[in-house]
Parts: sequence; structure tokens; C-alpha cells
Amino acid sequence: MYRTHTCGELRINHVNETVTLSGWVQKIRNLGGMTFIDLRDRYGITQLVFNSETHQELCNQARELGREYVIQIEGNVAERSNKNTKIPTGEIEILVDQFTILNSSELPPFTIEDDTDGGDELRMKYRYLDLRRNMVRKNLELRHRMGFEVRNYLNSQNFIETETPVLIKSTPEGARDFVVPSRMQPGQFYALPQSPQVFKQLLMVAGFDRYFQIVKCFRDEDLRADRQPEFTQIDCEMSFVDQEDILNTFEGLAKHLFKTLRDVEIEGDFPRLSYEDAMKYYGSDKPDVRFGMKFVELSDLVKESGFKIFDEAEYVGGICAEGCAGYTRKQLDKLTDFVKKPQIGATGLIYIKYNTDGTVKSSVDKFFSSEKLLEICGSANAKPGDLVLILAGVRKKTLTALCELRLEMGEQLGLRDKNKFSPLWVVDFPLLEWDEDAQRFFAMHHPFTSPKKEDIHLLDEAPGKVRANAYDLVINGVEIGGGSIRIFNDELQQKMFSVLGFSPEEAEEQFGFLMNAFKYGAPPHGGVAFGFDRWVSLFAGIDSIRDVIAFPKNNAGRDVMIDSPSQVSSEQLEELNLALKLKEAALNK
Amino acid sequence: MYRTHTCGELRINHVNETVTLSGWVQKIRNLGGMTFIDLRDRYGITQLVFNSETHQELCNQARELGREYVIQIEGNVAERSNKNTKIPTGEIEILVDQFTILNSSELPPFTIEDDTDGGDELRMKYRYLDLRRNMVRKNLELRHRMGFEVRNYLNSQNFIETETPVLIKSTPEGARDFVVPSRMQPGQFYALPQSPQVFKQLLMVAGFDRYFQIVKCFRDEDLRADRQPEFTQIDCEMSFVDQEDILNTFEGLAKHLFKTLRDVEIEGDFPRLSYEDAMKYYGSDKPDVRFGMKFVELSDLVKESGFKIFDEAEYVGGICAEGCAGYTRKQLDKLTDFVKKPQIGATGLIYIKYNTDGTVKSSVDKFFSSEKLLEICGSANAKPGDLVLILAGVRKKTLTALCELRLEMGEQLGLRDKNKFSPLWVVDFPLLEWDEDAQRFFAMHHPFTSPKKEDIHLLDEAPGKVRANAYDLVINGVEIGGGSIRIFNDELQQKMFSVLGFSPEEAEEQFGFLMNAFKYGAPPHGGVAFGFDRWVSLFAGIDSIRDVIAFPKNNAGRDVMIDSPSQVSSEQLEELNLALKLKEAALNK
Repeated sequence: MYRTHTCGELRINHVNETVTLSGWVQKIRNLGGMTFIDLRDRYGITQLVFNSETHQELCNQARELGREYVIQIEGNVAERSNKNTKIPTGEIEILVDQFTILNSSELPPFTIEDDTDGGDELRMKYRYLDLRRNMVRKNLELRHRMGFEVRNYLNSQNFIETETPVLIKSTPEGARDFVVPSRMQPGQFYALPQSPQVFKQLLMVAGFDRYFQIVKCFRDEDLRADRQPEFTQIDCEMSFVDQEDILNTFEGLAKHLFKTLRDVEIEGDFPRLSYEDAMKYYGSDKPDVRFGMKFVELSDLVKESGFKIFDEAEYVGGICAEGCAGYTRKQLDKLTDFVKKPQIGATGLIYIKYNTDGTVKSSVDKFFSSEKLLEICGSANAKPGDLVLILAGVRKKTLTALCELRLEMGEQLGLRDKNKFSPLWVVDFPLLEWDEDAQRFFAMHHPFTSPKKEDIHLLDEAPGKVRANAYDLVINGVEIGGGSIRIFNDELQQKMFSVLGFSPEEAEEQFGFLMNAFKYGAPPHGGVAFGFDRWVSLFAGIDSIRDVIAFPKNNAGRDVMIDSPSQVSSEQLEELNLALKLKEAALNK
Repeated sequence: MYRTHTCGELRINHVNETVTLSGWVQKIRNLGGMTFIDLRDRYGITQLVFNSETHQELCNQARELGREYVIQIEGNVAERSNKNTKIPTGEIEILVDQFTILNSSELPPFTIEDDTDGGDELRMKYRYLDLRRNMVRKNLELRHRMGFEVRNYLNSQNFIETETPVLIKSTPEGARDFVVPSRMQPGQFYALPQSPQVFKQLLMVAGFDRYFQIVKCFRDEDLRADRQPEFTQIDCEMSFVDQEDILNTFEGLAKHLFKTLRDVEIEGDFPRLSYEDAMKYYGSDKPDVRFGMKFVELSDLVKESGFKIFDEAEYVGGICAEGCAGYTRKQLDKLTDFVKKPQIGATGLIYIKYNTDGTVKSSVDKFFSSEKLLEICGSANAKPGDLVLILAGVRKKTLTALCELRLEMGEQLGLRDKNKFSPLWVVDFPLLEWDEDAQRFFAMHHPFTSPKKEDIHLLDEAPGKVRANAYDLVINGVEIGGGSIRIFNDELQQKMFSVLGFSPEEAEEQFGFLMNAFKYGAPPHGGVAFGFDRWVSLFAGIDSIRDVIAFPKNNAGRDVMIDSPSQVSSEQLEELNLALKLKEAALNK
């Protein structure tokens, strides 16, 4: 037996017991006749004491140990004279009688501490050492607990977890598939799923009523900063429901997770905001509503002042930064630089300081009287002491820039507390999105998303105005998940395909097999999918999903620890009936 | 709202309530002025009544409905005069006031009944309809419950469920990998994992202490009857444990599953049988111990009788079939045919009938006296009324054939009850297996399996005799899972590689990255992996794993429902830097 207790288990009531512990050497300190070792395992740290007076030989051996050696000790639990209140085992220590080195360790390439000296690349290469760090392991423990609680909740709500296949069929719509050559079926390929969408809808046709799955999905994209080629979804679908049923069910899930994982009680219903209002007041379909600072449209109010930028703008809008009237020139210049960054793209920033003495000072004093500026401040709900920040330009772009400015101001004012959670549902998304390049409408969600009943009549005359029964769960400005009520009526589905510019033949080729299933009594149904990685990282209070994934890939899609992807043998390719056909650029790489 | 209750929910105490139900039309019966419909959903069946006297129009519409139409009804719960005690809702029926057709259905290609008229291929093609059948859905509900209970138990034992990557690296050892071409890294490939073996060992190096995962694994094999290219494992690993700790922990899991899923209490410890004894007494490393009928070796007893087959045999062994002395000529001929089937491969079957009157009758009367035959019966523990069946030949092959004969007799005697469960651990597997073709030893489990301490000295002189700390869980003759204690000592690992015939360079190339991790304080560890599909099917009392998989593939690895694998576009291949290189045989296919 390697241990009687873990390194996080012993307390004052264990004093005088003889115990056996195993773990890693975290730290060694030699103090006069005593050697102290912090012994670490997943459960905690226990202090070991080697007394050179009573155990000379043992103490000498202990002094030879290195960091991260794996040892087993036997000894007596004693009360510490110098208690450590920071750790649960801090009241006791072990007076060691015997010890064995179970394994030695080379010196790790970085320190196994919360505040490590290892850079990102090194930590990823030695991920198995990085995972020994308390904070990294805690994230993965949280991930485990979250999966467990998701399942507890959904099981209690009669959901059946059903595994759908990983080796499926490539479809031309959407993002790129990863494909898997079939050896048994020469020249043919499986594809890895981007989501189990089709299968979960088939499970509804099959009468499963309530399905869920925590499932790996795959997308062969050019990776952005915080994307992974493989990621995990909480995928759900329900039958005989309308949108309200779904929102209530998953609001229940979210509350359960907040309660069990963060001990946060979310009172009352989650706010619901239409897509239209989200864009109008926050310039984003995933607004951070931990703080107000809603947009105020000023377009009409500021027209015909002779200030060309306002006069020519399609949209003028502002936000009120409370208590910021005292911002310095330098602070304002920095904000101007911020909005002018290429990825934000505003041409400039207009401000009005509403001073505490009731006067106003603005970057457009030339064009507006004090009265007019006060009127603008009034519209923006500014009080004396506040600062009104205004952007102007093309509507869509300006809304987006103002959104970034609002988030930046929220940051500067400390309004984006990671321990505060403000969830909301964004609803009534447009069904279709116009694509300028392709000169056609695309489904904003996917082609099976149901339009709102009251908007169906607009499908012909004004497709862009049709709203969908689609919804997103947004928490703290992060899109945690989204879904929709699906079309389950054949006629409406055909209509949808024709609006999307599919010929009946194309529709048949791409979606025929699902359409065929729908002929046999498909129930009304809808669902939602949550980004598991993203949601864990939100609960963990960290920004990157990589820190909640045990073995993540880097931005080039490489696993630097196992050095993958890699070449395969020519025999393997031969068996798969494949040949490499490298382009010159690749060959020169 | 589509329903106030499900179709399995209403009882006698709901009488007089007005309810709304939604579901599928299972059956329509017209009886005089009444039309009865069985309305079905996942939760059950509720009888609907349409009364033509009070609701003429409604009744006419109901008569137009077809099987599998999806309808919504409103009506009053009434007590049935003619109660059906077979279903939980059998005491009530609904007097329908209103109904809506939510969706129509074409006539399904087979009946949605337990005893369907659909053949295997048709059911797989329309799997979404097959899944509507009660017995198929029940299997998947059981699968869900099993996953849930596995997690409950392991969570309670401090295991952390950790997802390991699906896009990993191809390794030359073992079965064939499925590979995934990388677009971003031209000419390189990921591989899909055959198991998370390496990653779970790395998680032990990382100090995770107790890991598990219910995880999809992949193997590109020529499929046998009951294999799938993608299958699911319950994968587990623990640190600071010896074999005994692991067996106890997972015996606990098995008992928990028996209790919660089948309400079966397994009393006492699971029996443990050495690999040697399993082969000796059952001719198999996965013996079905629901019944006895152990092998008795008769080699010495029957030698030098002049019966050439015995005299020349390396091994002669028998089993005693209780109460079968009365077997007819025809029955015995059938058994002889059975053992002579090519897949069993015995050359013949010798019997001794130990008649109830104390006489013996045998197929080798010529060569043996009655006294000798009685002596053989005695050795085989036969009583009057029993039948002794004997096979002879080369040891290994004869043991295997005798194993098949024993199972067949168990079947004939009704000793293999699907509702009886007899689990056991088979332990002390050989570490190495000699491969005649390659003229070298292979690891029976994998190269990281630890030899037994007391056998290590045999590694040089008699590698074939070294036993491993490896174990299998066997239930009712099915290998449910297996695992081993791993080598965590560098020196022993090098030794193991050299016994396996790896040069240090080859070992480095194939396993270097794991060996490297082991340099940084690897703890003693070991684990186990269970076949999830197999275990569910055992609990479900069915033989095929396909019936516990929602969307299985056929024996050619095809999903006939979605028609996958399939061709991909030349643009896709181009992007992946690949070209097809079909062999002539494939082209002519």
C-alpha cells in the first residue's frame, strides 16, 4: 500500500497517528538540525520533518532529494508549533521515521508554482509538468465538475445522453470538414462532425424527446487566437417545445451551474433582449450587460450644425461615462487612438465633458452652443461630472466601434468584474443574412431554423426582415451558446431552400437524407448547443479556452507536446490509396 | 404549449382533468361509434377515444389519420371500463375534444413494433424509425443510465473526467490507425486514438491521481462480426496503487452498476483466477463461470491403451455433462459434427455414458475395460447418469476446442441464463507472447505493462514465463475490460524494450516522448479500460453491440443511413495536398 492518506487529508485530530504518505517533493528547507519537505499531491501539501538528532541517516538522505522526486514516507502526525493558516493541513506536520524514493526527477524546465517562470511554449511542450501546477489542475477539476453537474441537471430533466457518430459524411455547407480516408472503401472518406446537428434532429424524429451529449466537434479553420480544431459542445435537443420551453429549461441549467460551481444565485428570469435592441443599445449581439452605458442615438439631434462629420454621418451615437468629466487631454487622446486602431476603425472621437460646475467642454465647441451641448448631455443621460463620448459614421461600423469603446470604458471604470455574472438571452435573430460577395441570402443559423410565424409572410417580399426563432445565451459579453426552433414542416422547408437559392435538386443532394426522415412524422423540435470550453473558462475567470483543455493545440493546430500532426509512412498512404501532392510553396517550407 | 403531460404519465388520480397530449399514432381501431387511438411517445402509450355521437366531425378526421402521424389532442381523462393492466396508463383513457395534426407521415417501411417485420438492412437504413421501437430505445436509455452511474461512482471515488485529444499522432505499433490529413501542415497527418493510453499515463505524471473518461476510440480493422470502427471505452488510471487497489476499486464500480442498472447484488469478492488456471480448467482466458463443467486432464490416465489418438495426443481432456448419459446416437453425432467444424477443428469426439444402472458405454469400448472407463468417469467427477465428453490432440488447440464444447453443452443444458451474472478477475497474464512469424516476443498487453516483481529475474533466461501485473474483468464469458500496472522505472522499461527486440534508437523514436515525461518524477500507476458498448449489451441481455449504439456502422464500416464514407470533391483533396491513387482492383470494384 502506497499511502494511508493523501497529502491534503490530515488535520489536528490525526495527531499521534502513524501514517504513510506518497507524493512529490515541492520544496526542501534545511533549518539547523531539521529538514522540512513540502510533500505535494493533487489533494494538497503536507509538511514533513526530518530530525537529524534522532534520525541522522534519514535526514542526510532527505537532503539529497531534488524537486519533483516521488517519495513515500512513514511517520507520526504531530501538532505544529508554527501553524500555517493558509493551507488545510497547516496545523500538523509528519515526523518522518522511514522513507523510500519511488522515483527520481530531472530538474523540471520551469518551476511548478502558480507563478511559474515557464513561457507559454515551454509549458505546452511539457504540458504534463504544467498540469502539475495548482491553478492549471484546478481549471480541469472545475471542468470535470461542470460536466458532472450538466449531466446531473439534464438527467433530472429526462434528457438521454446519446453518442452520435464521429465518422460521418462530409457536407459542402459551412466551415471546412476534417476528412478521414477509408481504407476499406477505396477513394472514399469519412468526415469528422462540426456538430451533431443532423443526428440530434434525427433522434427527435426517432422520438427520443430529450437528447443531450457532451461531445467533441471539429472544424478545419484557419485558427484565430482562441479557437481549437477540436472543441467540446454541450449539445441538446427537445421535442414538442416552443422557444419559451427551451429558454426556461436551459435557464434552469445555467442557474444550476452557477449555484453548484460558483455558489452564485441568479435571482429572477434572465433578461431577454431582441437582436435589434442588442445592436441598437450595445452594437453587438453579445452585449456585456454587467454595466449600463447604453448607446444613445444622437443622429437627429446633432444634424445641420455645420460639423461635417456629423452632418454626413449615417449614424451618430454616444455613451455616457459616469464621473469621467475630469479625464485629461492625455486620457482622451489615448481613447481617440484606441477607436482609431485598424481593428476598430473609427475616424475620430468626439467628447463632451459635463463638468461638476454645470459647464460643458467639448471637442466640437466650435459647432455647438453650450445649450446644444447640454441638450446632448441630457439625451445621453449625463449628469454633472460625466463624460459623453460620441462616434459618427456608417451605421453598422460605427455601432461596432462604439461597442468596443463602451467595453474599453467599462474596463477602465472597473465595471467588468470577473466575479460578477450577468447572463441574458438575445432573441429574435434575423433568419437570413445577405452576403454581398455571393449576392444571395445565407441562413444566419442554419437552413433548418424556423422563421417566426408572424414573419413568414415576409419571406417573399422582404426576406431580410424575417426574424427567426433563434436565441443565444450571452454571459458577460461572451456567447456561451445558441440554438433555434427547427422547421419540421416540409412545405416551409422547401420555401426556405428556395429563398436560400437552392434548386430542388441541390436541396435534395445536400439535405435529402434528413428531408427524407422528416417525411415519417417529424415532431416539432428545437435545441441549443453550448461551448463547453468557453463556459468553463468563464466560470474559471480566465480568458483563454486553452487553459481549460488538458492537451490543447497551438494556433497552427499543432500539438507541440506529442509533435503532431506528423508524416505517415508510404505504406500507410499506399493502403489508403492516397498520394501526397505537395504544392511548391509547401515543398519549400 | 404542446402538452401538459407525456403519454406515460396519466393515472387514475388524473380522472376528470383536462389535458393536452402530443405524440405519434401507434394504432387506430374503429369499433362501432367509437374510434380508439393509441398515442405513443418515449414515455408510454395513452388511449384516446373519439366518440362519433358527441364529436362526429372529430371522429371522421381521426379516422383519416395514418400510422406515425404526429398529433396534438386536448380532452378529459376518464376511467376505462376495460382496463389494461399491462401498461401503466391502462386504467385511464382520454375523451378527445380537439385535435391538431402536427405532422403527417408516409407509411413506414416496417412496423414500429417490438416484433417488427423489418429486416436488418432496412432497419439500419431507416435507423431513425428503428429507434422508435421500444426495445431499441430502451437499450439506449440503459446506455445513458449506465454512463450516468459510471460517472456517479467514479466521481464519488475522486476520479476526474478529463478529455484527451482526438486528433493525435500515428504510431506504428498495434492495430491500424485512422488518419486525418492536415490542411494547415501540408503532407502531415493526425491520427485518431485507438485508446487514450499515452495521455492517461501522462495525466498520472501530471499528478491527476485518478483519471477517467468515457471516450470514443477508433481502430481501422477489417471488421469482424461484432466490431465497430468507432467504439466507446470507460478508460481509467490511478496513481500510488498496486494491483489489489485497482481490482478493489473497479469491483466496486461493477457492483454499483449491477445494483443500480439490474438490481442485482453481487455478494462477496469476485473470484480471481490465474491465466494458467483459466486455460487449464476452461481453455479460455475469458471463461464463462455461470456453470462448472471444468476440464479434467486425462492424458496420463488414458495413455498406452493402444488407442492411437490418445496415445499420440499431447493432451487428452474431458468434461462431465451432468445427467446426459441418455443422449441419443443422433445427439452425440451432432456434438461430433459440432467439434469437427473448421472453426473448432477437433478431429473427433470420444464419449463415455455413465448409465444410471452403474454400467458404462463408450465410443472407445474396444480399447478400455469397464473398470478403466469407470476410473476415467471417476476422474471426471461423473456420477451415474452423466456423460463424459473427451477431446484429444495438440494441447493448445484441444483446450480451445474443449472450451467451445463446454460452452455448447452449457447452452444445451440451459446453464447460460442471461439474467444470471458471474463476474471474475482473470489475473497473472503472461507478460510476453511469442510470435512464430516474427520470431520475437510481443507484449501481450502493451510495452508499459509491469512484470511481477518475483518474475523479473526470469526476463533474461525465460521471458515467456514472466507473469505480468495484468488483469481482465470477465463476466459470463465476455471480456468486459482489462488493464495493468505500468512500468514507471526507467531501467526496467529499457530492459523491457530490449526483451521486445527494440534497439535503444527504435525505442526512442516510438516511445521517446512518453519516456521523456517519465524522467520527471513519474508515480507508480496502473489502470484499466472497459468496453462500454460490450458492457451495456451484457446488461441489456443482447449479443450484438450494434443494438446499443444509436447509429452503428455495418460490417463493411459503412453507415448505410447517411451513406458514408463517400467521395469528396477534388477541391477538397487539392486543399489537403492529396491525390487519389486507386489500385486496379479498387477501380474495377
